[in-house]
Amino acid sequence: MNPNKFPIKHFHTIRVYYEDTDATGRVYHASYLKFAERARTEMLREFQLEQSQIRKKLKTFFVVFQCNVMYLSPAFLDEDLTVHSHLIDLKRVRMIFDQQIWRQQECLAKLTCEIACINEKGRPTRIPDSVLSKLRMDIKDKMSLLHT
Amino acid sequence: MNPNKFPIKHFHTIRVYYEDTDATGRVYHASYLKFAERARTEMLREFQLEQSQIRKKLKTFFVVFQCNVMYLSPAFLDEDLTVHSHLIDLKRVRMIFDQQIWRQQECLAKLTCEIACINEKGRPTRIPDSVLSKLRMDIKDKMSLLHT
Amino acid sequence: MNPNKFPIKHFHTIRVYYEDTDATGRVYHASYLKFAERARTEMLREFQLEQSQIRKKLKTFFVVFQCNVMYLSPAFLDEDLTVHSHLIDLKRVRMIFDQQIWRQQECLAKLTCEIACINEKGRPTRIPDSVLSKLRMDIKDKMSLLHT
Amino acid sequence: MNPNKFPIKHFHTIRVYYEDTDATGRVYHASYLKFAERARTEMLREFQLEQSQIRKKLKTFFVVFQCNVMYLSPAFLDEDLTVHSHLIDLKRVRMIFDQQIWRQQECLAKLTCEIACINEKGRPTRIPDSVLSKLRMDIKDKMSLLHT
Repeated sequence: MNPNKFPIKHFHTIRVYYEDTDATGRVYHASYLKFAERARTEMLREFQLEQSQIRKKLKTFFVVFQCNVMYLSPAFLDEDLTVHSHLIDLKRVRMIFDQQIWRQQECLAKLTCEIACINEKGRPTRIPDSVLSKLRMDIKDKMSLLHT
Repeated sequence: MNPNKFPIKHFHTIRVYYEDTDATGRVYHASYLKFAERARTEMLREFQLEQSQIRKKLKTFFVVFQCNVMYLSPAFLDEDLTVHSHLIDLKRVRMIFDQQIWRQQECLAKLTCEIACINEKGRPTRIPDSVLSKLRMDIKDKMSLLHT
Repeated sequence: MNPNKFPIKHFHTIRVYYEDTDATGRVYHASYLKFAERARTEMLREFQLEQSQIRKKLKTFFVVFQCNVMYLSPAFLDEDLTVHSHLIDLKRVRMIFDQQIWRQQECLAKLTCEIACINEKGRPTRIPDSVLSKLRMDIKDKMSLLHT
Repeated sequence: MNPNKFPIKHFHTIRVYYEDTDATGRVYHASYLKFAERARTEMLREFQLEQSQIRKKLKTFFVVFQCNVMYLSPAFLDEDLTVHSHLIDLKRVRMIFDQQIWRQQECLAKLTCEIACINEKGRPTRIPDSVLSKLRMDIKDKMSLLHT
């Protein structure tokens, strides 16, 4: 699917607490992966896709298959960050998200995360049709709005 | 100071993400301490008390001195929780918070946290006057509102 | 059961990494609960009690029911800590551990943790007999060694 | 510097505790970054390079600049993992580590982590000579041993 078909970005705000920082005084590097996951979770929730429900009803769940993160500038305690999430590819078995973490006008980190679908036995499986159709429906809706 | 002088409760909403859970399928027991700290931080922020600012300007910071937590019922992925925070005592060197974590009408956990004030050398120190007065001012204001 | 019946202490060494610290430069307060749990897990493993096996075979697992932690002195990055764990009470439905976290000759934190047993439905349940007997057998063995 | 000049691998053992897992029953994806950092820290410690000392004495510290992680197979509670760490490049301002996380004969995750050096003001800086020489000395020593 063409990335241009996914022009919709999602924005999620994060407050930095002590739990997110480390002894360098900065946000701990693995915390950015947590921030990115919170943002993806909220993005999917906007599509009426709640992971605990998907697991219960469809016996499948999403796992991170690959993640690349580049740290450009540090974040600090008490700061307000915004995670920009962009679903750039949606295949039968994978979703790819481009994500950026911003503090005001400055991009602090860039992530690319590839999400796979797993069944109850832990085997890779296709993304359920009902999930795919919700994501695609929403994209169509938003596209049509853009073109009205 | 009389606990009755602190009738003001603070409410902070928490969404449960994968990072907060463990292999039992429930929220990991230490995550409740993180939730409670986020709530105390937001409560203080409402009093214009931001910890990174206090540290920079007053060379003091708050640390947890004692914490007691009782787990009544588990929380799960994707749930919306509310942390009720109640500053029940405010001394020259300590603040005591009573906190509860609720899911709708059910109380899931109760915490009592004693917070001490530390200087840059890590020595216990008195809570700075400017901090105390903000907390007490606010309490007076709210009390007077209640009695109008 | 009389605490004197549990004279056996367990010692577990912890190295402090960045992940355990926060922007105060010290070990984050909730990390001590993680350290204590690692130590309890290793203590039980010495009794041939591995939690993932207990869950699979006996359909029960242990959860923290109550925890009290007192912070006496901070720990820092790269330090070597030792968790002293002491099973002070063992009832049909609860285990109580006294734990202390030491750096060389200095006690940094004291914890009391009450552990309950839960079945697959999340209901409190009795500690399985096979678990109890292993714990008690071991205690008897070690007591007899002490008295030889 | 030629990667062939760094044939020395470091092995670090990790036990999986509840804190490392999430509600999927598996190790949480961000925990692998923690495991990898513990291993890099222990690897550097073998070269007499302790990060808290480097910071105190040389006013510099290491930060993750880029990290790529690929998840091949999940890890579970109570498992014993081994992190294989390989310093594949050592420049004036960067170190690159290839790391793999294994359970017995199975590779569960692969990471490539680029580490940069930062001064007290948070600015990128050259790796201190005393650090570089320790790393290079050790490599030379081990190389000469290999060729004896």
